[in-house]
Amino acid sequence: MYSEGMFLPAQVIQRKRDGRALTEDEIRMFVLGFTRGAIPDYQMAALAMATCFHGMNTEETLWLTRAMVDSGQVIEWPRGGAFCCDKHSTGGIGDKTSLILAPLVASCGVKVPMISGRGLGPTGGTLDKLESIAGFRADLSLAELMRVTERVGCCITGATPELAPADRKLYALRDVTATVSSLPLIVASIMSKKLAENADGLVLDVKWGSGTFMRTREASQELARAMVGVGKRYGKKMVALQTDMNQPLGACIGNALEVREALDILRGEPGAADLQAVTLALAAEMLVMAGAAKDVAVAGEMLHKKLASGEALRKFEEMAAAQGGDVRQELPRAQFVEPVRSSVTGVVQAIACDEIGYAVIVLGGGRKAAGETIDRAVGFERPKKIGEPIEAGEPLLLMHHNDPARAMKAAAMVRQAYAIGPAPAPARPRLICERIV
Amino acid sequence: MYSEGMFLPAQVIQRKRDGRALTEDEIRMFVLGFTRGAIPDYQMAALAMATCFHGMNTEETLWLTRAMVDSGQVIEWPRGGAFCCDKHSTGGIGDKTSLILAPLVASCGVKVPMISGRGLGPTGGTLDKLESIAGFRADLSLAELMRVTERVGCCITGATPELAPADRKLYALRDVTATVSSLPLIVASIMSKKLAENADGLVLDVKWGSGTFMRTREASQELARAMVGVGKRYGKKMVALQTDMNQPLGACIGNALEVREALDILRGEPGAADLQAVTLALAAEMLVMAGAAKDVAVAGEMLHKKLASGEALRKFEEMAAAQGGDVRQELPRAQFVEPVRSSVTGVVQAIACDEIGYAVIVLGGGRKAAGETIDRAVGFERPKKIGEPIEAGEPLLLMHHNDPARAMKAAAMVRQAYAIGPAPAPARPRLICERIV
Repeated sequence: MYSEGMFLPAQVIQRKRDGRALTEDEIRMFVLGFTRGAIPDYQMAALAMATCFHGMNTEETLWLTRAMVDSGQVIEWPRGGAFCCDKHSTGGIGDKTSLILAPLVASCGVKVPMISGRGLGPTGGTLDKLESIAGFRADLSLAELMRVTERVGCCITGATPELAPADRKLYALRDVTATVSSLPLIVASIMSKKLAENADGLVLDVKWGSGTFMRTREASQELARAMVGVGKRYGKKMVALQTDMNQPLGACIGNALEVREALDILRGEPGAADLQAVTLALAAEMLVMAGAAKDVAVAGEMLHKKLASGEALRKFEEMAAAQGGDVRQELPRAQFVEPVRSSVTGVVQAIACDEIGYAVIVLGGGRKAAGETIDRAVGFERPKKIGEPIEAGEPLLLMHHNDPARAMKAAAMVRQAYAIGPAPAPARPRLICERIV
Repeated sequence: MYSEGMFLPAQVIQRKRDGRALTEDEIRMFVLGFTRGAIPDYQMAALAMATCFHGMNTEETLWLTRAMVDSGQVIEWPRGGAFCCDKHSTGGIGDKTSLILAPLVASCGVKVPMISGRGLGPTGGTLDKLESIAGFRADLSLAELMRVTERVGCCITGATPELAPADRKLYALRDVTATVSSLPLIVASIMSKKLAENADGLVLDVKWGSGTFMRTREASQELARAMVGVGKRYGKKMVALQTDMNQPLGACIGNALEVREALDILRGEPGAADLQAVTLALAAEMLVMAGAAKDVAVAGEMLHKKLASGEALRKFEEMAAAQGGDVRQELPRAQFVEPVRSSVTGVVQAIACDEIGYAVIVLGGGRKAAGETIDRAVGFERPKKIGEPIEAGEPLLLMHHNDPARAMKAAAMVRQAYAIGPAPAPARPRLICERIV
């Protein structure tokens, strides 16, 4: 009887708690009320938790995303400009593809206005990595973001307060209420920011495995399909690649170390095969989507040329400079570099990849709570990969650290993360598992 | 890895979200942290919602109750005094048993320090009813509560801030986050207040049916068993009666009307058979528990005598006076009394009893939001009960109101609440269904 002509947040929560679908109006009023503070955090927390249990159908997820987009501004890019395309990764360990891909794709004439994030749980953050470069600003205003993108062709910066403010507020709340891992909430969070950014196309890198919050291939496929679905309903070009994250990507984990590895690849060095492959596959999808190449084979050739010619590297330097960064200054280096040695002989059967990420946090290279300062020099290098043989006493990886006490703890975690057993080697995980359009 | 030696509320929420049992420490730190404001409302809201889905086992429920008791003071009654006993009802429509029972049992020499509540949803509140008496104070301090109980033998007042403050705070939060209907939360809420009150025994009236939040007999039995279990673990004497609330109890619904009905029974008038039966059954359990009667038959005789002799009525007047009430002043009366007539002929098959309660709110006799003032004169009288025949044009009940526009809306709700169909009459619901010890 209370509902006649009234919007009662508690009733909306109750409907979701009871497993019923919400209406567009209910979702919209809840999200917009929450954004402007009319609906308190505790009601949003209860709704988010009920959503963890009952989920949302396709329509509800779209409405949630739309309400979050409409909670703020949507960028209006100049008409008639270059095709505008972004890439988003669901996050992993050692994933520095963005650092390479944004300038590389921009050097092919496609506009890449990339809004990126900080480290989250065991996962590194692109902004944290870039801030290893002296002076680099990851807090551009909306006007600066647009200006750098238009002038340089690419830009990597944090979310601005004008874009999807509902997401900023909801994300902070989900983080402290154990409601991060709900599929529709993840979809709406990622897609609302991207839709507010208003690129013409979006390539998704949806990871699965021990280094992600999506522990099964099925769950990450479901996430990929949901995001592609929402993007298409908005008229965006969408492609998702499902990639493996059961072991660190590339040769380095840790902020400055990852920037160094990305710069090596941008200089045209071959680099780690897995990092190279994932980066080029994502970049090729962007070029094809933009109409800059007729297929991924042609796109791949273009990308290789831009790396070899140094154009991609110059684009990175141009972008860094436009964002206040000084690439001539040396990146921070840790005081100590020492191996973490295996205590057993065998073959690497599996890696608890998230534990490697947590070990970086223990070294001081990531945050236990928002706002903590981090040591950008620390991390790991050349981890043994799944299927590789190892002798007792041989290094599992090299540890860069500034504190022997922390290092001892991190080393124990690394040893714990490696499952080493007798041969045969396990089947190598497939790096790019699925293409979802 | 974050958990080493740390208490992280988000991890506790996550454990419950994932269906795992919490430890005593986790529950205790969460409840005490919440009470003193160190754990914010939104984290408690998320935990409460996760608890709606996964429940709590017997141990967890006990720990939750204990933490809530320990969030405040526990009353120390003088040693060697009379047996101290309380009754608690889970709430219904027209349930004024407390008004009769407290003075009646006290007149038999048993101490009854009753902490009661306000109207909640469609359910009336004992304190709201008593405040129909001019000057009656339902906000006694802890010292006053103890003094009135010791001097008069009984007392009916609201929860004081010293007793189970965690419950006060959690209850307000549950009300606005759709987390009221979780069994362990209900158990802990009721039992923490009662255990802080620290009576020697407790008789529970656990209702089921259309006028309650327990729509099935099974759900209310489960609630009764859980509460009895927790009370016994605290060394309390415990009895629960499961009673029917598929139709209003007694002849009146509405604050002053219910006080009038209670006073009639206290004057020794026979009154409505159902109200009489439930009240005496509960009171008899209290006397037997207190050792004041050897069995319920003997207790029943004692109670009848106290009603006939006027001792119970005098005890009520004494209690009211001790709490500032002036029983000589007339109770508020509504301006209009008019029948709500049936539009059809048949037999009352069922009553949506909560709708009758909501109709009282529409008349102004209850609150839509906490803190609203209410019209204590309005309500309903002599409702047709299940199984009674009715002719089109005959009254379903009499409506007391002060506003024809509200009355029209309430009358429509009453008609809607009655399901009238052709004979035969349905099986009469059994009034006292079960005794749980």
